[in-house]
Amino acid sequence: MNKPEIGIGLVGSGFMGRCHANAFRSVPGLFEVPTEPRLTMLAEASDDLAARAAQALGFARGTGDWQALVSDNEVDIVAITAPNLLHAPIAHAAIAAGKTVYCEKPLSTTAALALEMTEAAEAAGVVTLVGFNFLRNPMIKLAREIIESGEIGDITGFRGRHAENYMADAEVPHSFRTDPQGGGAVADIGSHIISMARYLIGPMAEVQAECRTIHAARPVAPGAFERAPVEVDDMTHALVRFGNGVSGSLEANWAATARTMDLSWEITGTKGALAFTQERMNELELWSGAAGRSGYTRIESGPAHPPYGQFCPAPGHHLGFTDLKVIEVAELLAAHAGGASCGPDFREAYEVQRTVEAMQASHAKRQWVAL
Amino acid sequence: MNKPEIGIGLVGSGFMGRCHANAFRSVPGLFEVPTEPRLTMLAEASDDLAARAAQALGFARGTGDWQALVSDNEVDIVAITAPNLLHAPIAHAAIAAGKTVYCEKPLSTTAALALEMTEAAEAAGVVTLVGFNFLRNPMIKLAREIIESGEIGDITGFRGRHAENYMADAEVPHSFRTDPQGGGAVADIGSHIISMARYLIGPMAEVQAECRTIHAARPVAPGAFERAPVEVDDMTHALVRFGNGVSGSLEANWAATARTMDLSWEITGTKGALAFTQERMNELELWSGAAGRSGYTRIESGPAHPPYGQFCPAPGHHLGFTDLKVIEVAELLAAHAGGASCGPDFREAYEVQRTVEAMQASHAKRQWVAL
Amino acid sequence: MNKPEIGIGLVGSGFMGRCHANAFRSVPGLFEVPTEPRLTMLAEASDDLAARAAQALGFARGTGDWQALVSDNEVDIVAITAPNLLHAPIAHAAIAAGKTVYCEKPLSTTAALALEMTEAAEAAGVVTLVGFNFLRNPMIKLAREIIESGEIGDITGFRGRHAENYMADAEVPHSFRTDPQGGGAVADIGSHIISMARYLIGPMAEVQAECRTIHAARPVAPGAFERAPVEVDDMTHALVRFGNGVSGSLEANWAATARTMDLSWEITGTKGALAFTQERMNELELWSGAAGRSGYTRIESGPAHPPYGQFCPAPGHHLGFTDLKVIEVAELLAAHAGGASCGPDFREAYEVQRTVEAMQASHAKRQWVAL
Amino acid sequence: MNKPEIGIGLVGSGFMGRCHANAFRSVPGLFEVPTEPRLTMLAEASDDLAARAAQALGFARGTGDWQALVSDNEVDIVAITAPNLLHAPIAHAAIAAGKTVYCEKPLSTTAALALEMTEAAEAAGVVTLVGFNFLRNPMIKLAREIIESGEIGDITGFRGRHAENYMADAEVPHSFRTDPQGGGAVADIGSHIISMARYLIGPMAEVQAECRTIHAARPVAPGAFERAPVEVDDMTHALVRFGNGVSGSLEANWAATARTMDLSWEITGTKGALAFTQERMNELELWSGAAGRSGYTRIESGPAHPPYGQFCPAPGHHLGFTDLKVIEVAELLAAHAGGASCGPDFREAYEVQRTVEAMQASHAKRQWVAL
Repeated sequence: MNKPEIGIGLVGSGFMGRCHANAFRSVPGLFEVPTEPRLTMLAEASDDLAARAAQALGFARGTGDWQALVSDNEVDIVAITAPNLLHAPIAHAAIAAGKTVYCEKPLSTTAALALEMTEAAEAAGVVTLVGFNFLRNPMIKLAREIIESGEIGDITGFRGRHAENYMADAEVPHSFRTDPQGGGAVADIGSHIISMARYLIGPMAEVQAECRTIHAARPVAPGAFERAPVEVDDMTHALVRFGNGVSGSLEANWAATARTMDLSWEITGTKGALAFTQERMNELELWSGAAGRSGYTRIESGPAHPPYGQFCPAPGHHLGFTDLKVIEVAELLAAHAGGASCGPDFREAYEVQRTVEAMQASHAKRQWVAL
Repeated sequence: MNKPEIGIGLVGSGFMGRCHANAFRSVPGLFEVPTEPRLTMLAEASDDLAARAAQALGFARGTGDWQALVSDNEVDIVAITAPNLLHAPIAHAAIAAGKTVYCEKPLSTTAALALEMTEAAEAAGVVTLVGFNFLRNPMIKLAREIIESGEIGDITGFRGRHAENYMADAEVPHSFRTDPQGGGAVADIGSHIISMARYLIGPMAEVQAECRTIHAARPVAPGAFERAPVEVDDMTHALVRFGNGVSGSLEANWAATARTMDLSWEITGTKGALAFTQERMNELELWSGAAGRSGYTRIESGPAHPPYGQFCPAPGHHLGFTDLKVIEVAELLAAHAGGASCGPDFREAYEVQRTVEAMQASHAKRQWVAL
Repeated sequence: MNKPEIGIGLVGSGFMGRCHANAFRSVPGLFEVPTEPRLTMLAEASDDLAARAAQALGFARGTGDWQALVSDNEVDIVAITAPNLLHAPIAHAAIAAGKTVYCEKPLSTTAALALEMTEAAEAAGVVTLVGFNFLRNPMIKLAREIIESGEIGDITGFRGRHAENYMADAEVPHSFRTDPQGGGAVADIGSHIISMARYLIGPMAEVQAECRTIHAARPVAPGAFERAPVEVDDMTHALVRFGNGVSGSLEANWAATARTMDLSWEITGTKGALAFTQERMNELELWSGAAGRSGYTRIESGPAHPPYGQFCPAPGHHLGFTDLKVIEVAELLAAHAGGASCGPDFREAYEVQRTVEAMQASHAKRQWVAL
Repeated sequence: MNKPEIGIGLVGSGFMGRCHANAFRSVPGLFEVPTEPRLTMLAEASDDLAARAAQALGFARGTGDWQALVSDNEVDIVAITAPNLLHAPIAHAAIAAGKTVYCEKPLSTTAALALEMTEAAEAAGVVTLVGFNFLRNPMIKLAREIIESGEIGDITGFRGRHAENYMADAEVPHSFRTDPQGGGAVADIGSHIISMARYLIGPMAEVQAECRTIHAARPVAPGAFERAPVEVDDMTHALVRFGNGVSGSLEANWAATARTMDLSWEITGTKGALAFTQERMNELELWSGAAGRSGYTRIESGPAHPPYGQFCPAPGHHLGFTDLKVIEVAELLAAHAGGASCGPDFREAYEVQRTVEAMQASHAKRQWVAL
């Protein structure tokens, strides 16, 4: 009767590491998962940091050596929330060890590295999952279902955006985000709206982008007087053409003063339309055209929209960000146990990254770039 | 370095039981709690049910006898999510055993029983907490802070409501909800808006209510042809006068066809106003009157509004219902460890219940009823 | 081919007088009205004031004597926008002269006087219309049509309000509004939500109200140091039971700090619901319960909602307040020419006033009052 | 004391002609205009049509010959609401006759013709005004004032759109709109968002556009079986760079199924932001960043926002589309009497048209096009 246990090895214990730990702890009480996750091991930058984080997040053991974690016999799933530069070496080691790999986005610092990781994972046949958690929202799944059903007709237009304000202040100092390897706003949050556009509409065929740096220089460290130039974009506006003929626009903006989470879009079809913003993540707006009654209907998330019902049998009880991560982990456990891959896997994350780089190339060349 | 452990005994494993279990599992990875909760024991209607629920929710042991749970040495906190009728006996036993008692609302089936429970708990000096989870929302705490600061001036008016649609359909059969001991809509969800009004404004001095049964009869069981009369209200509208002179209105409605969670209010002061609905629980609207710029500002929950920051260091990442329960449990653990009582304790829950009964009495007498 | 002309006599040239004048000028170019209105005569407090107002508003003649206007042979319709105290004598004179009477609300200062006016008009068989202009909104007509069609099932609950902030400041001095004959907030704006409730649901059978004066004293004149006590309500909350069994609540509030025009309501039926606020007067929200798609649909005003199409052949071009007055005048001209009375006529306005007084009486007696 | 009269000559009596007539009739009762407009003459396609339209819209005379109107001594202002092809000849004749010219948009069918008209008007020194009526909204004037004051800091980003659904249905037949001279969606409604962007931010320096035809063929006439190909765009997405360094995106879409009047934008500055949609034209959202209180404030139009007060002394009484036209005409009369030009004049309309053509050229060349 007891479920088989699987060992979770977590690399990194920052905000995302905490989210992963919480999700693995919560999931068995909420979902019918095939296995019982055990918080086996946590890796951090030193043994000491690892021991403290393991204790805080409920892991049995800690280690300052992620290679020890990856090769540990009790670890079945390697969850990577380490700095972006480390994603590739950790993932390659985990793949080599035959582990399921659950990696935060971006998959790597360049599309080329992401492709190597993808090919290694595919060659090894391991399960991979990349943490584009916003796709886990039941409202997003509902949107895809509505689009696929033809309910809103043929899709004609897309208008999407991910805008936040965490870099709006010129005094926010340099960090991994503003490192050229970080890729700027278009990589950091543009990747979210790109992945969602791909999930809902499909791959893009061609892009034309304008990347702009709003704050030309930032302090070299928090509070520092010295400033260094910024080489990445704060804001990117792009024209996009999808492979299926849909066209539209897309914005990535981390200096959007008024926005905290405007991961939003309107998708127009010949018979209806859908609109969404993560700022009201428990709502999906569906337009239909009944005579004299046409308008957007605000659908609230509820048990009619799986897997909402795992959290609550009644509507009106909002899901939040941490719940999205629980859903993601439930899907990961199902895929690990041999179910259909829930995606997005490494290949999908590579495609997202390739799209980001096409936008950057388009800006550099001032031309449309085909994908 | 390790925190002391405390044992959690949970009675009941329905929706609320699952929420409790999840909250106890999640809280140590998210909050700096003084103790480490252990899921020690779960009680259900039979040993068999209990064993299965314990396994599903991660408890070490199960029992068909809640008295065994209450008196178990390893149980420090008794969490009661059993049917309402059982709240009193379980709570009395837990109080007698000196345990901290964490009870779902309503505290009991009558105010008189609730008062007995309250007096027993106070005499025994045990920590108590009742699960009015909507009070845990950082936006509600912010509202209280704004009111207390005088930022919106003297409060003049209150307009509140808790409206849902779970009983809107005449075919929803009788259940504990429609049992006269359940108390109808005014007790079931009216208690939420009453508790919130008390939290934000203070106790009521006088009420005048009109309770109405919309569906005079309901099936005796799901799908049954036979119908039995309904004796409780589906919808109550009330006039309320608070002790501090504020006056207003309040509605409880479980047959509000269009509403899933309209626990909402507008509080007007002489210099400003606040508005909130649980349907958009991550937003609080604050009106201020700057010349030519007056209007409601939509404040989104974020790290500036504790304890949001425990879940995420950045704004825009919504809290959801399960997070409210985690906050509640964090406050419970703090109170259990000797911190200030977070409330609402048994006495507060009794006061809420007394207010519900005053509304019912007002309806019966067709008069204002003083509290 | 030319339409017959009718002469308009306007008494009063304040804000409402200007609105009337504008509506009479605009209506023939927008509606297929049966007659061509001529701005014949304007009466004000003195000949001089009248001459200037007539010139400014485009009337052919001015007079300081409203009796001359009422008895003028060229005046067919007497439009009354004079102070409330004068409504009765002017209306009686106009009725005696057989004129159509178009009177601003309130019909008079007491229900008893309003009844006398009503009976006089009915005895004389003249057309009357009272300016409850918010009823002219195509969205309100649509709401009534939806309710009457049964589309949202049997109506079960009503929750209405008219809240503004024009008296929120304690320094707003005494005026006709705070005169006991003015009747306070419940008369001044409560009458709007009462008239709308009657239009949409029907007459009330019983009310229970709590009237409250928020600012106990106000300056005797603008800027005056001296203050005099206020005897009317600033805010009234009421419970209401309609003749057809619907029950609910209603608020009138002219000290609602945050509100400029919250003439709003939610009407719940067994199959759906409607919600509206004058703050977004071009929208009506209609809830329907399609599986997995249930929610409020935001219907925007458009040509599908007569008489919107008189103003514009395409949706999206908002109607505003002045347009409501144009619609009202178009309906007045049709009724004057022998069409069906558009209402609300004097009797309807009397019924509204009687309801206001029942609320005041209920407050005084602290009891339910039957109508 | 009486104001001087000026004669209005209106060419065209369709929807826009009716709006003009209504505005000229309404304006003297609402605004302190320097002159008293007389509806002197109306020109239509035939004498008969003109006579009927003159009668319906209140003009003294009608004519089937617009040249007679333009050269009539009693006509001081020539208002052009004729088909676009006729704008140029009528305007040139009116300019030659020294008349003030009030022309609906687009100024002409090509930017080259618009430039000729502009140069002729400037050489003759006549007053010109083009009917970009959405600029007349007090909320738009407020937005410009806020931007100019520096209240939201330096502007960094613009995201604008004009989306409607009047051509969304593939069965909407060919008309002047789909004529290549009509210019498609980018000309028809793109011009509105371009003019508003110029009004608020300034001229564009460079554009990159993707124009797309969604319905490749349309019926040759209403209900016709025969279809002819469509050569104009249904939807254009563009990247824009303004002369002052602001960059962003812009969309024109007349096949936006779910939209009736989404003339909307968000303008981001380093200290705040503004957001607006014509779908809620009486609201402007202003973001400010007070600690713990940051958010968008929904400002409702009111007397604090001129010229709202001309319509109503109290807030909450919405302005509508017809009111915008009244404001436009009030500004026209002031400019005609020698006041400062209110704009947009012919030159501004030419600049808008030039921007439209730059977008079309960019699409054709698949390159950025400088302006």
